[in-house]
Amino acid sequence: MSDISPLRTGTSLLSRHECEKAEGFFLPELPRLLPVAYHPKAAQIEFRSNAWVRRYLAGCFADEGDLLKLLRERVGLYAPLIAPTADEQRVLDLADFYHFVGLIDSLAADHSGLGASDRGARDVFDKILADFAAGTDVALSDDSPFGRAARDLWRRISAGLTPDQVLRFRASMSRFLRGIAAELPHQLTGSVPDYDTYLTIRIDSFGCDFILLLTEYALAVDMTGPAASPQFVAVHHHAMRQLILVNDLLSLRKEHGDPMNAVRVLCCHGGLTLQRAVDRVCELVGLHEHAYIAARDAVRHGPFGARADVRSYLDGLDHLLAGSQEYEYLTPRYFGDGSVWDGSTSGWISLTAPIARFLPRAGDASRTTAGRRSRIPHWKEP
Amino acid sequence: MSDISPLRTGTSLLSRHECEKAEGFFLPELPRLLPVAYHPKAAQIEFRSNAWVRRYLAGCFADEGDLLKLLRERVGLYAPLIAPTADEQRVLDLADFYHFVGLIDSLAADHSGLGASDRGARDVFDKILADFAAGTDVALSDDSPFGRAARDLWRRISAGLTPDQVLRFRASMSRFLRGIAAELPHQLTGSVPDYDTYLTIRIDSFGCDFILLLTEYALAVDMTGPAASPQFVAVHHHAMRQLILVNDLLSLRKEHGDPMNAVRVLCCHGGLTLQRAVDRVCELVGLHEHAYIAARDAVRHGPFGARADVRSYLDGLDHLLAGSQEYEYLTPRYFGDGSVWDGSTSGWISLTAPIARFLPRAGDASRTTAGRRSRIPHWKEP
Repeated sequence: MSDISPLRTGTSLLSRHECEKAEGFFLPELPRLLPVAYHPKAAQIEFRSNAWVRRYLAGCFADEGDLLKLLRERVGLYAPLIAPTADEQRVLDLADFYHFVGLIDSLAADHSGLGASDRGARDVFDKILADFAAGTDVALSDDSPFGRAARDLWRRISAGLTPDQVLRFRASMSRFLRGIAAELPHQLTGSVPDYDTYLTIRIDSFGCDFILLLTEYALAVDMTGPAASPQFVAVHHHAMRQLILVNDLLSLRKEHGDPMNAVRVLCCHGGLTLQRAVDRVCELVGLHEHAYIAARDAVRHGPFGARADVRSYLDGLDHLLAGSQEYEYLTPRYFGDGSVWDGSTSGWISLTAPIARFLPRAGDASRTTAGRRSRIPHWKEP
Repeated sequence: MSDISPLRTGTSLLSRHECEKAEGFFLPELPRLLPVAYHPKAAQIEFRSNAWVRRYLAGCFADEGDLLKLLRERVGLYAPLIAPTADEQRVLDLADFYHFVGLIDSLAADHSGLGASDRGARDVFDKILADFAAGTDVALSDDSPFGRAARDLWRRISAGLTPDQVLRFRASMSRFLRGIAAELPHQLTGSVPDYDTYLTIRIDSFGCDFILLLTEYALAVDMTGPAASPQFVAVHHHAMRQLILVNDLLSLRKEHGDPMNAVRVLCCHGGLTLQRAVDRVCELVGLHEHAYIAARDAVRHGPFGARADVRSYLDGLDHLLAGSQEYEYLTPRYFGDGSVWDGSTSGWISLTAPIARFLPRAGDASRTTAGRRSRIPHWKEP
């Protein structure tokens, strides 16, 4: 497995303060070597998952406005993008599941509520895990909206998993919630971890274990055996790093100031300017994407490559990476509530505008039609 | 052709004032007998069409916020819904075209701007028509954003039309703009036309001629001959009325107070309460939908039914009606900026909430999860 180091020599040093005061950054085109596809029923799945959120999770929002804000993030389109060839019902199960964990993630980011302390969050997470562990036994779990939603998801998804996968599903939720809780001290104090510590926590808090497990679920395959073999280690290693680093770039505007972002880690521990840190993370994305493709091809051409389920799973990983990236360009979660994607994937991004979009140059809001300039570069709050 | 009369005897009389003061109405389930399908590339087409709007029409908006508000209406999804089986590039041409005419429609609704007088609007529309007539000859038309957009659309679409269709395309735009201008005196004075006058204007202002022509374009067929034959008269008659009446129901919240709506026409000229007028328009939708299906089947089983292009066109009309209705449920254009569809198609609709959705009962915002009620029934403006 190739070792990709985040820092190189010869980088210009900058104070932490200077890194933080940047008003924006330029995002270059990323490689995007993997195939983007939408599930043929993507739109219908998104709308149906919106209905599931209303039915099961409405009680988790302060009001209807907060619920609509989540729905405007289009989380229901994530599953149709990462599992474009899967059975419609399984994609719907994934869509509802990602709405569920996306909401946990959003609530943990509210440092006046669930995310006010890691101890408080751990207590809530213990209850959520108990709801998963209770399976379909209502008497064993609580009657909170989270409890009902967790039981519904558990019932639907575990029915399509092997016993090995059921154990991994439960363990993956535990690891995810542990990761979210482990991020909180950094977020509450602002302390930026070093790159290795960062990645260790982030692999958990990103939900990598259930992301991989649910990729198996979507395709109705069980990779418990192969995934533990040495041939798969490099595949998953690079896939998960590509996934996380692309997310760090595209969520940077939303998470500006959040210490749990690779760009911030490289700014603070590598002494890079914000732009140089962005550029370096873009390079790392490319390195991990190429390394993933090489490792995936090695499995394809190795002893596992003859198995139809393995080949299906490897195609699924391609879609997972490509689909996640596509989702992160299009979601108003990262570019600001009210934004609408126009398909552009590179440009200057403001960190201060309430709604951002890719602009040709820093501070430049000129229309792409030559010679005219917009009157107001950024959306004004109503 | 069956004659469907809008008014029956035995309806309760109500004053115009009482009709206008209603705070909402209950929308029953509509028949939806025709097949809903999304183009496999629906999402990508929507995003690409958003980019076209930014490139060609940005100058028509007061600012970036107004442009984003249009994009949030998801007009770019209309073409993938009404032409789900068509060639991707042709669907993209339609998506851009419907963004263009949708913007004209929105600007005409601004009675302090383009829609301040029908004479002023007619002058602007004459220029738009000149841009279409100029074809690709830049010297003959103006350099406004509308002019450039019209020329781009003309160039792309006319290349795929027969000479007969090119003439119909130009005539259809003229008839559409004449219809929009003819609506303005009613909208500016509030005078409600009778049902026949209403339908005559509305067939024009709804763009029925280009909607049908572009259905041919999407499927690469020329129905100029068949469409003029007696067999097709009933097909188009009922199809266009179903299209208009469904739109009147689903846009009623947005257009509350607009005299150019069948519900308003039946309130004022039939003395119906708002709810009874809604119920009657729902019945009319069902009658026209059934009559359309019967007329379509008569063509299928008649002499034209052996032609592959005719059969393809009839399937296209099915998708046109079903897809339009699906679009009208999902668009924030009708339910309020910031709304997100959850797939529901029936319920009580508030005419006063800034964002509406289908509720179980009048004024009732109880969650569908039994026993809990939302804290705040409607979205509060930020």
